[in-house]
Amino acid sequence: MGKKHVYLFGGGSAEGAGESKDLLGGKGAGLAQMSELGIPVPPGFTITTEVCNYYQAHEGIYPEALAAEFGAQLEALEKLGGRRFGDPAEPLLLSVRSGSKFSMPGMMDTVLNLGLNQEIVEAQIVAGVDARYIRDCFRRLVTMYGDVVLGVPHEEFERVLAGARERAGAKSDAELSADALAELTERYLELIASAGEPLPEKPIDQLWGAVSAVFDSWNVRRAREYRRLHGIPDDLGTAVNVQMMVFGNRGEDCATGVAFTRDPSTGEPRIYGEYLVNAQGEDVVAGIRTPLSIAPVDGAAGLGVEFPVAYAELERVCALLEDERRDMQDVEFTIEAGKLYMLQTRDGKRTGTAATQIAVDMVEEGRIDRATALTRVTGAQLVQLLAPEFDVAEKRQAIEAGRLLATGLAAGPGAASGRIALTAERAAEMALAGPVLLVRDETSPEDIVGMHASVGILTSRGGMTSHAAVVARGMGKPCIVGAGALMVSSEKGEMRVDGRVLREGDELSIDGTTGEVIAGELSAQPSQVLRSLLDGASDDSGLVAAARRLLGWADEARRLGVRANADTPEDARVARALGAEGIGLCRTEHMFFEEDRLPWVRQVILTPEAAQRAEALAHLLPVQQSDFEGILEAMDGLPVTIRLLDPPLHEFLPRGEKSVNSLAERMGLAPQAILDAVESMAEFNPMLGHRGCRLGLTHPDIYDMQVEAIARATCALVARGFDPRPEIMVPLVGTEEEMARLRERTAAVVGRVLAEMKCSFEIPIGTMIDVPRAALVADRIARHADFFSFGTNDLTQMTYGYSRDDVASFLPQFVDQGILPADPFEQLDVEGVGQLVALACERGRETKPDLKIGICGEHGGDPSSIRFFDSCDLDYVSCSPYRVPVARLAAARSSLHREAGTPERK
Amino acid sequence: MGKKHVYLFGGGSAEGAGESKDLLGGKGAGLAQMSELGIPVPPGFTITTEVCNYYQAHEGIYPEALAAEFGAQLEALEKLGGRRFGDPAEPLLLSVRSGSKFSMPGMMDTVLNLGLNQEIVEAQIVAGVDARYIRDCFRRLVTMYGDVVLGVPHEEFERVLAGARERAGAKSDAELSADALAELTERYLELIASAGEPLPEKPIDQLWGAVSAVFDSWNVRRAREYRRLHGIPDDLGTAVNVQMMVFGNRGEDCATGVAFTRDPSTGEPRIYGEYLVNAQGEDVVAGIRTPLSIAPVDGAAGLGVEFPVAYAELERVCALLEDERRDMQDVEFTIEAGKLYMLQTRDGKRTGTAATQIAVDMVEEGRIDRATALTRVTGAQLVQLLAPEFDVAEKRQAIEAGRLLATGLAAGPGAASGRIALTAERAAEMALAGPVLLVRDETSPEDIVGMHASVGILTSRGGMTSHAAVVARGMGKPCIVGAGALMVSSEKGEMRVDGRVLREGDELSIDGTTGEVIAGELSAQPSQVLRSLLDGASDDSGLVAAARRLLGWADEARRLGVRANADTPEDARVARALGAEGIGLCRTEHMFFEEDRLPWVRQVILTPEAAQRAEALAHLLPVQQSDFEGILEAMDGLPVTIRLLDPPLHEFLPRGEKSVNSLAERMGLAPQAILDAVESMAEFNPMLGHRGCRLGLTHPDIYDMQVEAIARATCALVARGFDPRPEIMVPLVGTEEEMARLRERTAAVVGRVLAEMKCSFEIPIGTMIDVPRAALVADRIARHADFFSFGTNDLTQMTYGYSRDDVASFLPQFVDQGILPADPFEQLDVEGVGQLVALACERGRETKPDLKIGICGEHGGDPSSIRFFDSCDLDYVSCSPYRVPVARLAAARSSLHREAGTPERK
Repeated sequence: MGKKHVYLFGGGSAEGAGESKDLLGGKGAGLAQMSELGIPVPPGFTITTEVCNYYQAHEGIYPEALAAEFGAQLEALEKLGGRRFGDPAEPLLLSVRSGSKFSMPGMMDTVLNLGLNQEIVEAQIVAGVDARYIRDCFRRLVTMYGDVVLGVPHEEFERVLAGARERAGAKSDAELSADALAELTERYLELIASAGEPLPEKPIDQLWGAVSAVFDSWNVRRAREYRRLHGIPDDLGTAVNVQMMVFGNRGEDCATGVAFTRDPSTGEPRIYGEYLVNAQGEDVVAGIRTPLSIAPVDGAAGLGVEFPVAYAELERVCALLEDERRDMQDVEFTIEAGKLYMLQTRDGKRTGTAATQIAVDMVEEGRIDRATALTRVTGAQLVQLLAPEFDVAEKRQAIEAGRLLATGLAAGPGAASGRIALTAERAAEMALAGPVLLVRDETSPEDIVGMHASVGILTSRGGMTSHAAVVARGMGKPCIVGAGALMVSSEKGEMRVDGRVLREGDELSIDGTTGEVIAGELSAQPSQVLRSLLDGASDDSGLVAAARRLLGWADEARRLGVRANADTPEDARVARALGAEGIGLCRTEHMFFEEDRLPWVRQVILTPEAAQRAEALAHLLPVQQSDFEGILEAMDGLPVTIRLLDPPLHEFLPRGEKSVNSLAERMGLAPQAILDAVESMAEFNPMLGHRGCRLGLTHPDIYDMQVEAIARATCALVARGFDPRPEIMVPLVGTEEEMARLRERTAAVVGRVLAEMKCSFEIPIGTMIDVPRAALVADRIARHADFFSFGTNDLTQMTYGYSRDDVASFLPQFVDQGILPADPFEQLDVEGVGQLVALACERGRETKPDLKIGICGEHGGDPSSIRFFDSCDLDYVSCSPYRVPVARLAAARSSLHREAGTPERK
Repeated sequence: MGKKHVYLFGGGSAEGAGESKDLLGGKGAGLAQMSELGIPVPPGFTITTEVCNYYQAHEGIYPEALAAEFGAQLEALEKLGGRRFGDPAEPLLLSVRSGSKFSMPGMMDTVLNLGLNQEIVEAQIVAGVDARYIRDCFRRLVTMYGDVVLGVPHEEFERVLAGARERAGAKSDAELSADALAELTERYLELIASAGEPLPEKPIDQLWGAVSAVFDSWNVRRAREYRRLHGIPDDLGTAVNVQMMVFGNRGEDCATGVAFTRDPSTGEPRIYGEYLVNAQGEDVVAGIRTPLSIAPVDGAAGLGVEFPVAYAELERVCALLEDERRDMQDVEFTIEAGKLYMLQTRDGKRTGTAATQIAVDMVEEGRIDRATALTRVTGAQLVQLLAPEFDVAEKRQAIEAGRLLATGLAAGPGAASGRIALTAERAAEMALAGPVLLVRDETSPEDIVGMHASVGILTSRGGMTSHAAVVARGMGKPCIVGAGALMVSSEKGEMRVDGRVLREGDELSIDGTTGEVIAGELSAQPSQVLRSLLDGASDDSGLVAAARRLLGWADEARRLGVRANADTPEDARVARALGAEGIGLCRTEHMFFEEDRLPWVRQVILTPEAAQRAEALAHLLPVQQSDFEGILEAMDGLPVTIRLLDPPLHEFLPRGEKSVNSLAERMGLAPQAILDAVESMAEFNPMLGHRGCRLGLTHPDIYDMQVEAIARATCALVARGFDPRPEIMVPLVGTEEEMARLRERTAAVVGRVLAEMKCSFEIPIGTMIDVPRAALVADRIARHADFFSFGTNDLTQMTYGYSRDDVASFLPQFVDQGILPADPFEQLDVEGVGQLVALACERGRETKPDLKIGICGEHGGDPSSIRFFDSCDLDYVSCSPYRVPVARLAAARSSLHREAGTPERK
């Protein structure tokens, strides 16, 4: 017996119960599960993802056994439904929906009402079926089939529909009469025929056409793009669900809706969703008509009042689904003649706030354990909780000044300011120059890249489950939808609201937490959760408490240490408040740029005279010492890795006439001498120039001063009863000899100070691994290093040959076009740069099995990179202070992932 | 029984006969061999290198058994010599000389005449020994011991000696009377005593002091530096040779000299050397007195006339040594009372000319086989044969114009022009700015680094075997010594000659082949050998014929292919004439810089308008096609790897006002628009910027045009009956996706042209491996590449993080200080960059076992790098046309090395 290709469900049981989402897709598995649980589900069958893969691999040919199996299951379905497909007297109408393992909103296509043609419609009307209803069904079939299967642009149907509404003087489709619908359908059919292939007459041809269209749609560009952006493999395939229609558009006792079992914005445990009376499901999702809230709100009665029986059943079903599936669900339903039918259940997308609240609530409800809770909140979601909010006073002033343009649905929390872009393409272009807000009537899958490029999304139409809302929440971007006061015209390059005109490129602000659209730029401030973590105050707010608990569980679960990159005592305090267990990177060059120090720094660099150099360094020593004291005190008892001077010296040189003259005077030189020196130190490629430990070797007195300042700061703090734990890090080491010499020299300076101060402690001396060669010879460098810390920014620059300052001219394009899977400066390139990281860990530990290894590049705060660093058994990651909570969570999720036994390390 | 530490030789036999140079050092092994062959050698013994290593490892303590063994061998020596050490009546006088495995000229120290003190000297005079002779011996002992063992600066003895000569009115030391020498010795002893430790009274203390001084000298800074520069391991150790003195300073029937068994400049098979009558060996080597030629020359009679018996014996010994040692020998000898004694034999250093001539001659003489001949000529020596010579007419004019300043000894062939540096330190500094000639009275080991930094060396004193001459020949640098007309004053920063003054920094030229010193700069031209190879003419000249034969043997012996980097038909022809088997790198950007093309190139870059771009590209297409036709025709039947455009686009942009305005006019734009575009394309780190295949992907029309030009050129040549073999190379690939897309696009363009032209051939499409990431993912890139070619310049830049344009501020210092063993842009960094090369080869071949792999960076012409590339089983190296002969030889030597079974590949 061959493989089973088609799985039947309905009538209280399912052939596919217990089969995986891999085989049946998310939708098919959910339907099978609901059917098995006795939840009212219209019967149907699922064609497996394996058929999809076969179809893709064989250029559109199906497995030989499929046709017979399909026919048998269609017959079984006819029995369950009590109607026959294509029968003019009692026609079985079917829907065809795609459903792969992962939900891909808007990517895959749906065709409803299959099984109708002119003849059947007329026969049904003759048999007494409501003419308006059956003609509405047919015109919907024609539109969807024309669009999805035959490729006639959706907008052309809309245009024809708008004409029909105008002729009929109708405001909405619901006002169109049966005759108007008949005429509309006629025009649709003409439109299709004029564009090429006509609508198949025979229902069975329609059915196969729709099934094939689903499989074909797996491979269209926008689907491939979505998968690429979300890291979904191409060979996963989609299943196809063929299901008996139930009708939300059969009259005023019918409806269709979508619901979340909890609020997807806040996590509040109540059914949250929207419905439309006398409509079919696509009307809700497409965001064309603005739907009603299921909960009573703003004078609307809510589903519970309008459809009390169905609502009670929905409440029962939602609770049952949460019990069984142990997560918040996103369901689709239809009410036909007052009776509830469930069409889909899946784990619901949610904001960071909701994810945190739901995860913690479900632990309390006993539905999940702590480890599961940690897997339910992604780093990106936690980022949303910590995302900035507008300054409250500034926003109030702006509103009082009349800058509030409109209020829409708060579809994605967070605050964003940026320049208006009216098409996705423009958004992607403009994003190269600065933050962009994408403003559209509605968004569609074609806009994905532009949405990625934008800091926030605003639409004039659609509801909380419209494409824009769902996708923006997934991306963690602030989003407002359904701001109906906006008139957006991308052709004219402007949007109008209340008589005001804003043009593309104008500044705009949106508050995705409140739904406010405000003209001009607004400054943002830390979120409530962030403020509370920083204050360290115990707070009653449910969300803050939930976030604290979740992070506490994360700290229990993680193996990786988390440190922060911080250069000032203030940054160090922030980092510590957010849970940093030390400083992984304290850059000393930032201290050199302060106004009272820069002239001395310049003197060191420019003078060849030993006395002048010594004088300048003597001035810098106490201020550096005080810098280090401040940071070490703030991190008392925790390690602080201090990196010796790294950038090219000419970064410190004077540029303007004024600073040149003042420096010349100070040093007793002619201004031209300063200019000559500046000129002589200019570099063609400073990134690859005379910097880092190369400076330390050619200008040893600078490092000597810095090391002395560190040692003296440590002695001073010890004398004051503190427990300072400095670590000295040498940057840009490429050879064993460099490290050996600098280690020797550094240790000698430390030893000299300790002897002088009669102090005794160890200061570990280690190195950045930020040059490819260092990774290659890590075994040798480790002989002289107490620790390694990967500088993945520079390592990425040199491994790719990409200057971070210059990549804007091609890198965004490379990411958009899929030449690069992601920006390697945001997400560590595991395939390439990762090899060097893994190699350096392996070789370093060959020499010193207990070598401490961390990472202090930007990637230290990126969850997917953190998982890789964990797989390399790094000791800690270090990231910017505000990313520390994210890193704590990501480290915990990585530990859980590893415990689950997924082997990741090469 | 323990290890033997001391080996006796003399009287026709040697305990160490057949022992290795590792154990006895080069000098000790040569003395043992000569003794065994019955060659007259004063008896002595050798203390092994193992004793040296023990001594170094135990902080100056000797093995316990040494003292007894030393005593026994000293007694044996006394028997052989018929005298007793320290006996006032018949004192045995001894020399102590170092001798490690490799000769290190000037590095190690010698003490002669050990075994004398005041008492013995006086006793000898009483016993009738010539007072002047014995006092001369003693004062030499005092000088050398004071200098070498006790560390009193040589110059202070010279100063005292000069005073003595002045008082005595003597021009040379030989004119000093016995009494004058006695007084001089007295002053020497005072000088030593005033500086610290006095001269030991007891001869045995002197002897041990001298032995220990040799061992100590192994570890002084200059010795370590020499070893580092020559790659000699520190644990090799030196042996010490204690030998009975014979006296070249005992009267007019005595002499001392050095000789080569063949001419070390030309290879001519005749004894070549110098001697001094009534002198000791160090006088010749030190270059203090200008010695006489052994061959009769310029009116001097020569050794054969002055010492006929000894000369006949020397001829016999030289022939015997060449028979036995199968190489040209460098010997030291002393004639005492007319009888010849050999003090040393070693393989002689020689110029490239001599090396080539001798290697080929010795094959003809049946002394060595062809493989051995190839091991006798290094790449550096072949470089000398190909080194430029001054333009004959220009030099004649310069001489007629009175610019000939002096003529000295032609100690190192080749022509060099540069700025005068009067100290080694200044030479090293000035070399950063341009070519430097080091001009000194004489050179010493302290000058090594400055000599390395100079393009040529000129001294006013010394002979062909002086330090300057020997070291310069070893380095392959043009050198003139003994140009006595020069008065060099480094204190005043000038040199005077014949009333003219040249200052440090002035231009000077030296012809090391003729000995001419010429004021000002002269332009150079290809050498005779190079011209002959280029002309392809058969030439009677012995040297040219020898070079041709040697290169022919190299071609038979090598596995590696040799190609050239050439961008023009002319370069291609040169490369082919010099033996290139193809072009490994044809850069297309150089063609873009030509004056008639640049405006079109600029138009392509600057215009956003498709029509203007297309117009410009249409103009460039035929000229690129004609470029490629020229090169492919010149390399008919051989592969030509054409690299698509590589550098950042802004390199092509206009800079001056004039070119901006003219371009603006041409393109119908405002000049400011051009300036803005130029500004917007500027990069902070162009090396890591928008270049190479990144341009190919963002500006695909440029690569399309280049590929089309290649395909059309190929079709045109096929139509004309040629056999063009282009290969298309994509630069700067870092990811599989880049290569996959560019391969697809390139193949499509080629296919289109072939179809249009009705032509049929394959054009391989491959990639540079010049980004570290490309090496790491070479297995994936190889899926889409027909070949790899390592761009080791960029690979080195990115692996080290060194910008080649910017390293001058630290890299020379790093090399000098031993932080880097060599400039990694000259000699491939096998330890680091080499790992990436080896990895890419391994992974590339995992994917495609027959993947063709070459290298086209500068390292393709460097012999030591070539050996590494051979060990990676590369298919070919590609270097600049004039390096092709060197690469052919280096490839052959590498093959022979591998056959000899030294495993090198990791």
